[in-house]
Amino acid sequence: MMTGRSCYTASQFLQLLLFLAAQPPKTTKKIFGGGCAASKPRPVPKVTCMMTHLGKRHKIVDGLEKITGRARYAGDLVLPNMLYARVLLSPYAHARIVSIDTRAARTTPGVVAVLTAADLVTQGRMVGSRQTTTLAEAVVRYRGEPVALVLAESEAAAADGLAVLQAEYDPLPVVADLEQALDPSAPLIWPHGVPKAGADLTATHAAVARGSADTAAHAPTNIHEQKHFQRGDVDAGLLAADVTITRTYRTPIVHQGYMEPHACLADVDPFRSHLTIYTATQDQFGVRDEVARVLGLARSQVTIIPTTFGGGFGAKYGIIEPLVAAAALRMRRPVRLTLTRSEDFLTTTPSPATLITLTLGATHDGTLTALKADVQLDNGVYPYPLGGIVAVLLGGYYRCPNVAISIAEVLTHKPQVGSYRAPGAPQATFAIESSMDDLARELGCDPLELRLHNAAREGDLMGNGDPWPSMGLVQVLEAARNHPLWVQRPTEPGHAVGLAIGGWPCSSTPAAAVCRVDTDGTVRVHVGSVDISGVNSSFVLVAAEILGVAPQQVEIVQGDTRTGPFAGSSGGSQITYSVSGAVASAAQAVRQQLLELAAEQFEARIEDLEIVEGMVRVRGVPGRSIPLGKLARRGERQAGGPGPIVGEGRVAPAENAPGFVAHLVEVRVDQETGRVTPLRYVAIQDVGFALNPMLVEGQIHGGSAQGVGWGLYEALRYDEHGELLTATFMDYALPRADNLPSIEAIMIENPAPHGPFGARGVGEPPITAGAAALANAVRSAVGVRITQLPINDEVVWRAMRG
Amino acid sequence: MMTGRSCYTASQFLQLLLFLAAQPPKTTKKIFGGGCAASKPRPVPKVTCMMTHLGKRHKIVDGLEKITGRARYAGDLVLPNMLYARVLLSPYAHARIVSIDTRAARTTPGVVAVLTAADLVTQGRMVGSRQTTTLAEAVVRYRGEPVALVLAESEAAAADGLAVLQAEYDPLPVVADLEQALDPSAPLIWPHGVPKAGADLTATHAAVARGSADTAAHAPTNIHEQKHFQRGDVDAGLLAADVTITRTYRTPIVHQGYMEPHACLADVDPFRSHLTIYTATQDQFGVRDEVARVLGLARSQVTIIPTTFGGGFGAKYGIIEPLVAAAALRMRRPVRLTLTRSEDFLTTTPSPATLITLTLGATHDGTLTALKADVQLDNGVYPYPLGGIVAVLLGGYYRCPNVAISIAEVLTHKPQVGSYRAPGAPQATFAIESSMDDLARELGCDPLELRLHNAAREGDLMGNGDPWPSMGLVQVLEAARNHPLWVQRPTEPGHAVGLAIGGWPCSSTPAAAVCRVDTDGTVRVHVGSVDISGVNSSFVLVAAEILGVAPQQVEIVQGDTRTGPFAGSSGGSQITYSVSGAVASAAQAVRQQLLELAAEQFEARIEDLEIVEGMVRVRGVPGRSIPLGKLARRGERQAGGPGPIVGEGRVAPAENAPGFVAHLVEVRVDQETGRVTPLRYVAIQDVGFALNPMLVEGQIHGGSAQGVGWGLYEALRYDEHGELLTATFMDYALPRADNLPSIEAIMIENPAPHGPFGARGVGEPPITAGAAALANAVRSAVGVRITQLPINDEVVWRAMRG
Repeated sequence: MMTGRSCYTASQFLQLLLFLAAQPPKTTKKIFGGGCAASKPRPVPKVTCMMTHLGKRHKIVDGLEKITGRARYAGDLVLPNMLYARVLLSPYAHARIVSIDTRAARTTPGVVAVLTAADLVTQGRMVGSRQTTTLAEAVVRYRGEPVALVLAESEAAAADGLAVLQAEYDPLPVVADLEQALDPSAPLIWPHGVPKAGADLTATHAAVARGSADTAAHAPTNIHEQKHFQRGDVDAGLLAADVTITRTYRTPIVHQGYMEPHACLADVDPFRSHLTIYTATQDQFGVRDEVARVLGLARSQVTIIPTTFGGGFGAKYGIIEPLVAAAALRMRRPVRLTLTRSEDFLTTTPSPATLITLTLGATHDGTLTALKADVQLDNGVYPYPLGGIVAVLLGGYYRCPNVAISIAEVLTHKPQVGSYRAPGAPQATFAIESSMDDLARELGCDPLELRLHNAAREGDLMGNGDPWPSMGLVQVLEAARNHPLWVQRPTEPGHAVGLAIGGWPCSSTPAAAVCRVDTDGTVRVHVGSVDISGVNSSFVLVAAEILGVAPQQVEIVQGDTRTGPFAGSSGGSQITYSVSGAVASAAQAVRQQLLELAAEQFEARIEDLEIVEGMVRVRGVPGRSIPLGKLARRGERQAGGPGPIVGEGRVAPAENAPGFVAHLVEVRVDQETGRVTPLRYVAIQDVGFALNPMLVEGQIHGGSAQGVGWGLYEALRYDEHGELLTATFMDYALPRADNLPSIEAIMIENPAPHGPFGARGVGEPPITAGAAALANAVRSAVGVRITQLPINDEVVWRAMRG
Repeated sequence: MMTGRSCYTASQFLQLLLFLAAQPPKTTKKIFGGGCAASKPRPVPKVTCMMTHLGKRHKIVDGLEKITGRARYAGDLVLPNMLYARVLLSPYAHARIVSIDTRAARTTPGVVAVLTAADLVTQGRMVGSRQTTTLAEAVVRYRGEPVALVLAESEAAAADGLAVLQAEYDPLPVVADLEQALDPSAPLIWPHGVPKAGADLTATHAAVARGSADTAAHAPTNIHEQKHFQRGDVDAGLLAADVTITRTYRTPIVHQGYMEPHACLADVDPFRSHLTIYTATQDQFGVRDEVARVLGLARSQVTIIPTTFGGGFGAKYGIIEPLVAAAALRMRRPVRLTLTRSEDFLTTTPSPATLITLTLGATHDGTLTALKADVQLDNGVYPYPLGGIVAVLLGGYYRCPNVAISIAEVLTHKPQVGSYRAPGAPQATFAIESSMDDLARELGCDPLELRLHNAAREGDLMGNGDPWPSMGLVQVLEAARNHPLWVQRPTEPGHAVGLAIGGWPCSSTPAAAVCRVDTDGTVRVHVGSVDISGVNSSFVLVAAEILGVAPQQVEIVQGDTRTGPFAGSSGGSQITYSVSGAVASAAQAVRQQLLELAAEQFEARIEDLEIVEGMVRVRGVPGRSIPLGKLARRGERQAGGPGPIVGEGRVAPAENAPGFVAHLVEVRVDQETGRVTPLRYVAIQDVGFALNPMLVEGQIHGGSAQGVGWGLYEALRYDEHGELLTATFMDYALPRADNLPSIEAIMIENPAPHGPFGARGVGEPPITAGAAALANAVRSAVGVRITQLPINDEVVWRAMRG
């Protein structure tokens, strides 16, 4: 049973159901952008149109456990002698801690200890990120900052102890939002210098953020980092333009809204100071390294065991693990902490609010001449710079010779932000795609044709000046152009279709996998990646395809940080792209071993053998066949033979494989109330090659639903004291099933040159375009340009009233 | 905590202490039989005399857990919802089950169920071996046969239920021993045909048992298998002899006497009929296959997780696992069964009693001309033929042109026998080495020189007609010849030294391993073998040696049957011999990957690089070095690079590497009481190459102690009704610390051509010679030839009285 199940939102549940659907809806179309012959990455065998399992719809391998509640989540785990933790969160956004009176809590029946910062080995180690700051020392700097930990023999006793735990605070001035933070008279969040960044950003962020930075060496401000990206001469470009438009866009703080709140169990070996941490994380190796660093341990003294994953969307790169681990070390007992839903809203890392002022210039024929942007991001209390990605996308979707983008990463008294599915992309896309729509209107041209005219192709530049690798923006736009919803789009008042494109550079990280064959023919694939979206179910198909066995014959062995071959984090849309290649390579090594054994057995050449339905056969000689299990047995028995069947695969893709989308949304806008009702949604995406179309469709459906959430419903609202006003699912409006349109997923297969079988990352692109498409639909339906998210009734009503 | 700890015997505890000793005694000498340059097996890198870790004394890696009681044994494990089992054992050696009244047991508070054969899926599947017969159906055939299982919510409730569980029996005639079984008028154990053998013998047994078999196609008897091995013409050989001697030897049933009784926990996945079994087994893959076969499941539906091992010595190849698994399947709950010490004596698989009549013939110059033997083995109720090994050794220690050996494998109403460290060897060695000693006496020659004159060399024939591979019998005899205890052996009445040689062919099985390097430089070696004698501690040294890191930097990852690369059973003295090669090969692959990365980094040739103290260095350029962890990080980060560091190793040794010993024992015999006191023990052994001399010494000490137990103390005694009279450690005389002499271990290093770094199996040889050496010492001391084991006070006293 998952903790917090009663808090499932409809959209999350919908996404789960779509993953699990036994007979999925047949609304999916596939358009082969690059023909069927998938390209050939280095370690991946040649594939042909004759594939048996890949490219077909398969259920996920662990659906039964998940849908029946048998899957064990971190919050379900109990160890002997375990302590249950509850955390005291700061009620102030900025205050000095005067005292913490632990007496009443300590004497509560069942409470074993109350820990404050002074009790933890992490004291004084604070290095300026959410996860490295375990408990506040002296000062709290955001509402929800952990102050003390109650440890008890039961969950109930911990709650009782927390209820009587008292801290006294001396409130200090609060910097609650971007405007306040940038006011020169504002107090400084870090008057003595911004703490060193946590350096926990994913490889993507590092790779794409190549602008010239000036890290505010001059007068101290609340801007922790400024960056400028430019190419050409933006002033000349604006002069050359026949039309220019300037708009300012605002987006709020949005939470990832995963089903499973953060939960973590740390166990400690009393002899060796070795920690074993059971946690739902997207990045087991990264969290392992971080916990070791924060606690001053060697990496090999920490083992992360990744538990069944109840949703993360970028938020589960380690938040509470160092705190729980430090408590376990202190107590020399296992400690488990599960956040309540409200605690989770208060003390985790949502997506930053942004303020983007964007100017576009174009000539009469629709050719962009200039793009100028000023971007501010509200990153909360610690540096977590995401502006680089905003710049990459803002300045990268379209060809433009003259670009200038300024980024200010700003600190406020709010929780540090973090990644949320395609971090920065919904915000950047909302701005550029709203402006492109208005530019088309100004130019009097078709908005789709304007985009197609300017769309970036492979080799064109991203906002940071690097060239795009192979990408499919043109292909998705061409598919949108021919879609009935676009061709026959309604034009009546209050009823229209909006279009937006979006994209994501996607990440890649080197990865390894190990493949073995058992004597009953079972193929086992050992991976160290964490399955957050059904990736294991795709690995099964890759191995089955290469080894000629049924997918039911393939098992995934989930590695932890001790047992697992390395893989990068399950984020950045990289796992299928990276790890599938390693799985393919390992399976290929095993295939070769099996064929060599069979060739010896049959006195045949390897070229004359094939593997079909779990048997190696001599082509054209029906009687000459042997099951893989028997060959495996030979390997395990034959003295002087080759040895047991086992092969390793290692890959390091040479480039990323960006994923692009074009989304169409049909809306009805109630002209009395301003309410926007999405009626129909078409999500067209270049997926490279859909290893398992059912899972890719699940990603497209889930991401589109979250995009609608960004567009119409979601915002974390803080008051001027930094108090969170929306810390429950009653107040924070995740879309429910009845708030969502039917979503049609259309997969374009434009193979990635380095992707396994041509696959691209598919997880992040579908969230990018929804908000912009909705804004453009509203503009077409009721004639008002909404420049802030979410586009709720009040915003539209006020806009319509001028 | 280990269940049954109060039953530790001194000799077992001694053996453990020897393993764990921090500062081991420095009594060990090493004599390099083949020079220092170890031979080079296929996948193993060249080794030189410059080895850093191998060949030096190192503590075992898990000593701390074991000596502090933190190690978790199967009997320590508790799962939520687990049932505790106790088993009802038959009080009769042969009886019809009239009825089982389960009512009182079922209604005992806390008891959940009482299961009989009819309740298990194994009903009717009985295939004629101890482990496949889970609960008796209709008839019991040995004292201690499991009849019913009580399942309760606690251990105490299960015991209460067992106490009131009543079965009614109708006793049937009992065949209690060899003589009775072979009497033509005896009842047949299996009147309707002997059930098919379990086919569970180790590869060794199968490989060495190549005699011509006639499986009693004629009149049914209690002999389940007869075999005849012969070469030359034994009658002609006897005619050509100047001296012949004939002796008849008896050995009793001996129990393995491990510290940890059999214990097993089976968990069941209610959805998939998947069983996970936690058990102390020497052969996880074999037990997995057997459980699946008995329960009618696919192998992939069963996972064995090997737990910390508390001793097995051949007895833990699966006994109670199918029963516990069947109960878990039936109850759909986890079930744990731990045998009490007495139950363990009653219902497990000891070593067979034997009756061996042996005739040797030789010419005056001491050359053997004939060897003739009749061997009978009491195998208990199911076939478990061990006579093949007896023949291999009886007819293989010495060159002899004319050999005839007849083996009768006999059934009785006793528990089925099983393997016990060098199964069959102590019995065979007791016979041949006693007779060789008397032959020397008859010939008037030195007993050591007689042995040396006839000793088998590489290429000479074993008892089954196959040639010996490289072996070191001559070398150990030469070392004994020069040992002070032999050179200056006492000759006074009641005080003498006995000599015997012994040997074991040793097994090998293909094996695989996977090696990885983590970013902090930790090397992880993933194996699927079970560590029963510190083998993991040797694997650590192999990897450390090849990768140039400290042993502390190497971790062993223990694989189970799902996660582990295949390895054979931890028996037959094969694991170090087989798996070390796979570990070496995997480490070598990883070394190559690291050197390639470093060569690129330093723009150097691989030949110019070395790995020292965890750093790759350019030879002769002190500043140019990089830690392995940094190279691993490069592999995990570099786009377009080689990928993470991981390598697999696979080996399948082409031949076995026999291990030979010469043992000297000094005794004092009390001429009034007949008591034999061993004073000093010298165990000389060809170990090939001692990867970790401390562990090899531990094996030699432990095996020698058990050999003394065979010689002087141990016997399972049954009465004429088949009742076991010695079912506790009060009655079954394992040697205590004060019953044992000081043991000097001398290692001869005569490298095995296919062993990793020349290593041979070392576990089994040291148990083989003790009983014979003691008998020969007694003969020298008091002039009587003892032909039965154990050589206890009464036996010697009676012999001295004529």
